[in-house]
Amino acid sequence: MKPIVRAIGTLESCFKEKFGTPRQPGLVPAATARLKVKKEFIPEQSLKGLEGFSHVWLLSWFHLNTNKAFKSTVHPPRLQGATVGVFASRSPHRPSPIGLSLAALERVEKDTLYFSQIDLVDGTPILDVKPYIPRYDSLPQARAGWTDGAGESAFPVSFSESAAREADCLGLRALIEQVLGNETRNPRDRSQLKDGKDLEVFLGDWDVHFRVASGEVFVTAIEPAKPWKKARRVAPPAELL
Amino acid sequence: MKPIVRAIGTLESCFKEKFGTPRQPGLVPAATARLKVKKEFIPEQSLKGLEGFSHVWLLSWFHLNTNKAFKSTVHPPRLQGATVGVFASRSPHRPSPIGLSLAALERVEKDTLYFSQIDLVDGTPILDVKPYIPRYDSLPQARAGWTDGAGESAFPVSFSESAAREADCLGLRALIEQVLGNETRNPRDRSQLKDGKDLEVFLGDWDVHFRVASGEVFVTAIEPAKPWKKARRVAPPAELL
Repeated sequence: MKPIVRAIGTLESCFKEKFGTPRQPGLVPAATARLKVKKEFIPEQSLKGLEGFSHVWLLSWFHLNTNKAFKSTVHPPRLQGATVGVFASRSPHRPSPIGLSLAALERVEKDTLYFSQIDLVDGTPILDVKPYIPRYDSLPQARAGWTDGAGESAFPVSFSESAAREADCLGLRALIEQVLGNETRNPRDRSQLKDGKDLEVFLGDWDVHFRVASGEVFVTAIEPAKPWKKARRVAPPAELL
Repeated sequence: MKPIVRAIGTLESCFKEKFGTPRQPGLVPAATARLKVKKEFIPEQSLKGLEGFSHVWLLSWFHLNTNKAFKSTVHPPRLQGATVGVFASRSPHRPSPIGLSLAALERVEKDTLYFSQIDLVDGTPILDVKPYIPRYDSLPQARAGWTDGAGESAFPVSFSESAAREADCLGLRALIEQVLGNETRNPRDRSQLKDGKDLEVFLGDWDVHFRVASGEVFVTAIEPAKPWKKARRVAPPAELL
């Protein structure tokens, strides 16, 4: 047997680029995605019984990784500069770039799975879906190493009058509040971290403009995403599909 | 980027063949294994900080899978003949034959990780180690689908006088009791299921002979494993190593 992995489908997610995509699942309950399982994997049979599970593991291919050489340590955003070994982290930069994400399974419709609480970017190849079995997978008392002390930043999020109207009209308010309520910026990118800098995050079909100043997020405007951004979706490796 | 997976090392486990290897992690706390991380993955750096975690996810390659064609449904042993879709199961027979096992991390010594509660067979290529982060990974309330009603068989295990002496002397009693206390037999193999049939399981360096009769397990003898059995270890695909 050759060590070949195959995508059972490609995820369509509300996160259209890495920037703004949550660093862990569960942080953004309003994040949605769907996966259409390819015909060759006979979804009408292979998904049978999955609807009884509230959560699933998604094994994914980190197709946006760009680093060529192996890096043995990473700088988790939450550790603000400190390093840990790559195997002590959930960083995407790994010898086998396979992601492990817990997703809430909202429903199954024929060949398509609908998820929430997702942390994966649009276009991610999904290698496998496995049911979450709490008897085996849930260990609330497990020791959490360096992640224990490292708190998540939580920002209050407010909107300009027009942005608030747009957010409500588009049904995007919860998603925006949850995404921007977490630290989206790269702690190693000084220009991003500048107080009051104009930033934008690409969610669904929308560019959401915002600023972080004095520990608060202010959403200035919501605009249709620029066409060149929409066209930019990175294709996964052909061999996988 | 090509969809290439790489083994960071090969697991040395107390389970020397598929028969007797637990169907899920956690069922056999006394099951031990170790993983030496290959030099090219710079273990002195890449494992830094892992010792703070009590549990890890092991992503593994199911190198003993023999089926050539995709099968959309499986017969989980616990369902005694009923079928579910392969994606509603944790069966090894998947489009991307990647296993997800939760293991207790006993200790880290230089380049080597020591585990217990393992459910993987000796020689399994390990693609990745990720820390278990209870804040993200633990969901005690998740709905468990068909696995909820499907109880594990639990057998009382007793020993012949000589087998008991051997088990104690070799420090194998807990491992044997836990392995054989679960149903090891294939529910679809009538000859294995015959009451009182002589069976043997290959644990560590030992062949453990036993019978299941009237819902009880009786360990008859413990003998050094036959040399031809020891030589039978299946090599993982060369491309992976």
